[in-house]
Amino acid sequence: MLTLDKVKNAEQVLREVINNTDILHMPIECDNEVYLKTENLQITGSFKVRGAYYKISQLTDEEKKRGVIACSAGNHAQGVALAAQRNGIHALICLPAGAPISKIEATRSYGAEICLVNGVYDDAYQRAVELQKEHGYTFIHPFDDEDVIAGQGTLSLEILEERPDMDAIVVPIGGGGLISGVAYAAKQIKPDIKVYGVQASNASSMYNSIKEGRAIRLASVNTLADGIAVKEPGRLTFDLTKKYVDDIFTVNEGELYTAILTLLEKKKLIAEGAGAISLAAAMYNKLPIKGKKVCCIISGGNIDVNRLSRVITQGLLNSGRRCLITIQLKDTPGQLSEALQCVAKLGANVISAQHERLAADGDVDTCYLKLELETGSFEHIENIKSTLEKSGFHIIH
Amino acid sequence: MLTLDKVKNAEQVLREVINNTDILHMPIECDNEVYLKTENLQITGSFKVRGAYYKISQLTDEEKKRGVIACSAGNHAQGVALAAQRNGIHALICLPAGAPISKIEATRSYGAEICLVNGVYDDAYQRAVELQKEHGYTFIHPFDDEDVIAGQGTLSLEILEERPDMDAIVVPIGGGGLISGVAYAAKQIKPDIKVYGVQASNASSMYNSIKEGRAIRLASVNTLADGIAVKEPGRLTFDLTKKYVDDIFTVNEGELYTAILTLLEKKKLIAEGAGAISLAAAMYNKLPIKGKKVCCIISGGNIDVNRLSRVITQGLLNSGRRCLITIQLKDTPGQLSEALQCVAKLGANVISAQHERLAADGDVDTCYLKLELETGSFEHIENIKSTLEKSGFHIIH
Repeated sequence: MLTLDKVKNAEQVLREVINNTDILHMPIECDNEVYLKTENLQITGSFKVRGAYYKISQLTDEEKKRGVIACSAGNHAQGVALAAQRNGIHALICLPAGAPISKIEATRSYGAEICLVNGVYDDAYQRAVELQKEHGYTFIHPFDDEDVIAGQGTLSLEILEERPDMDAIVVPIGGGGLISGVAYAAKQIKPDIKVYGVQASNASSMYNSIKEGRAIRLASVNTLADGIAVKEPGRLTFDLTKKYVDDIFTVNEGELYTAILTLLEKKKLIAEGAGAISLAAAMYNKLPIKGKKVCCIISGGNIDVNRLSRVITQGLLNSGRRCLITIQLKDTPGQLSEALQCVAKLGANVISAQHERLAADGDVDTCYLKLELETGSFEHIENIKSTLEKSGFHIIH
Repeated sequence: MLTLDKVKNAEQVLREVINNTDILHMPIECDNEVYLKTENLQITGSFKVRGAYYKISQLTDEEKKRGVIACSAGNHAQGVALAAQRNGIHALICLPAGAPISKIEATRSYGAEICLVNGVYDDAYQRAVELQKEHGYTFIHPFDDEDVIAGQGTLSLEILEERPDMDAIVVPIGGGGLISGVAYAAKQIKPDIKVYGVQASNASSMYNSIKEGRAIRLASVNTLADGIAVKEPGRLTFDLTKKYVDDIFTVNEGELYTAILTLLEKKKLIAEGAGAISLAAAMYNKLPIKGKKVCCIISGGNIDVNRLSRVITQGLLNSGRRCLITIQLKDTPGQLSEALQCVAKLGANVISAQHERLAADGDVDTCYLKLELETGSFEHIENIKSTLEKSGFHIIH
């Protein structure tokens, strides 16, 4: 049974392995005073190691001897792998064959055996269930397990020990393991604290389930926040969330990009999509409170760098620090150089330039210059556009 | 005079304002066991606030009333601005007019008055000297000042209090303020600790000066590590470095890019060029020690996001996770699609594709396909190239 003593026991057990991650102040303008619990700086780059480690520590010697199995392409896999390694037991992780190479390598680096399964997550899951039966491994569920939930709940102990003045904790929700543990433990210690959940609009299974009053399975999920792209909440986690969580909000992808970029610029921290979603909810004033001290759990930082690079580019476009301009030119020598000179004088840096002749509706004397520019702000972009227009160039868009 | 008591006094004074930043373990394979003192997570995003705040706290009431002036486009400006704000005094910061907008805004956000000066840094410096004389402001030097040096030295107290077992501290060098304070204080507390300095190969003023035995002024400096792009060491800092620093090493720009990307991927931390240079030195085994516990000071995280995005791209190219391929195609329908299909089957993601007809030495039946791809590793790239060749395509490069 989930009790506060179990969570406290988990904290004792975890003390030998995990970091008590920093709580940092986040200087942004919004309705509340925001703090960050930096679980992206946790070992394995995510809070998931808490639940996985505690679960594995509670196995019997016989179970430990047989080893554990899990199915995940993400943070849970790394948590289980590290926890098994530190407990000196065998871990087998089933992953879909198309999983990102970086995540496979990270899991392997913690000493786990990897089983790549052709197909998608569900196929890997089926294979894990088969292998579990065949070999008698213990299946480590990513969220719907009391020991796992107790492990995640240790976050509330750390937060409220260091900052008993927090008025609310904001938590990303995938399957619901993290928020179940955090809400349960926080309310035992400080009954009047608010605990809010956040999901991506495109993966709002718990949000929908709570609104409908029963667990609902989504046909598909599609979000940058892959760590919380879960189609259906767990049974335990649905009940705990219903009982202990004050409310759930959703965040769209653009808000998520901006939150990631804000963490990066203002706090020098990398968060994955799921990791930044609690901050996005606070930044965009989704919470029904004002002037309160709010602790956002930055749950993880394991974002693929190629993807991060694209998020940064999109974030720059969204905030006026990158822009795409297409300029119409007359087909006479000197036009290209004149347009580029105009841009250079205004301090914009050219990332890429394409000069094209053909357009579906163009006449034979017209060319097009497509520019990708580094700019300072939306005002700067407007200034560049109006100066080009004044110099006789037509801006297509 | 610089004494250990002065550094200890600085620590007392700073306790009310700054964070005692975390020391994190860095899991990389190299000759030593590496730890990071995360001053990129310091308020203002850099250690510079230590020296600036302590200096300003030591001013007389009369001096405080008149206010302070500084010349900087970077971390020192933000440190002085915040320190002045917290002490309730006026700060005027001179910056070259071309300074990055983000840095100007950050400095302004701490309440400082900004004076933009046409020209380069030296022009802004001249103007600051004039204004200082005119108004009786106190000039806050970025490094060549005993109080500033004592403030930076508090880092050694924090490091050796938390981790007295450290065998060496690795420190970026610009003007030399940080390493002077760190080396002085560290050697007072633990005489056998090693303190190593690191500079960028293209901005190695202290390195050259120490080798020559006298302060040398470089004609120009050019490095991503703008925080330590200083043409000439200070007088005080040259003497302190000569006396207390064990050795200085240099790091090239490519090594710097990889260190930034490594911090980002393995530790979810953003470092600016100067901030990652100590890690680069440890990673690339520049230090003359093996098997030791080495604390690298990650001095700051204030890197422009546009620039970070370019560093990431370059880092991806350097590590085989991004590649540029030019393929020669025959000018018949279906060739483009066939080549792209071949790439898709091997799991590479297309970032950009350009199909071109003309080449200086091409014949009329030849086209070129330029691809930018997301790849997994150098092996993956080789596999793509050889599969294309086997399918009859000629790879230009």
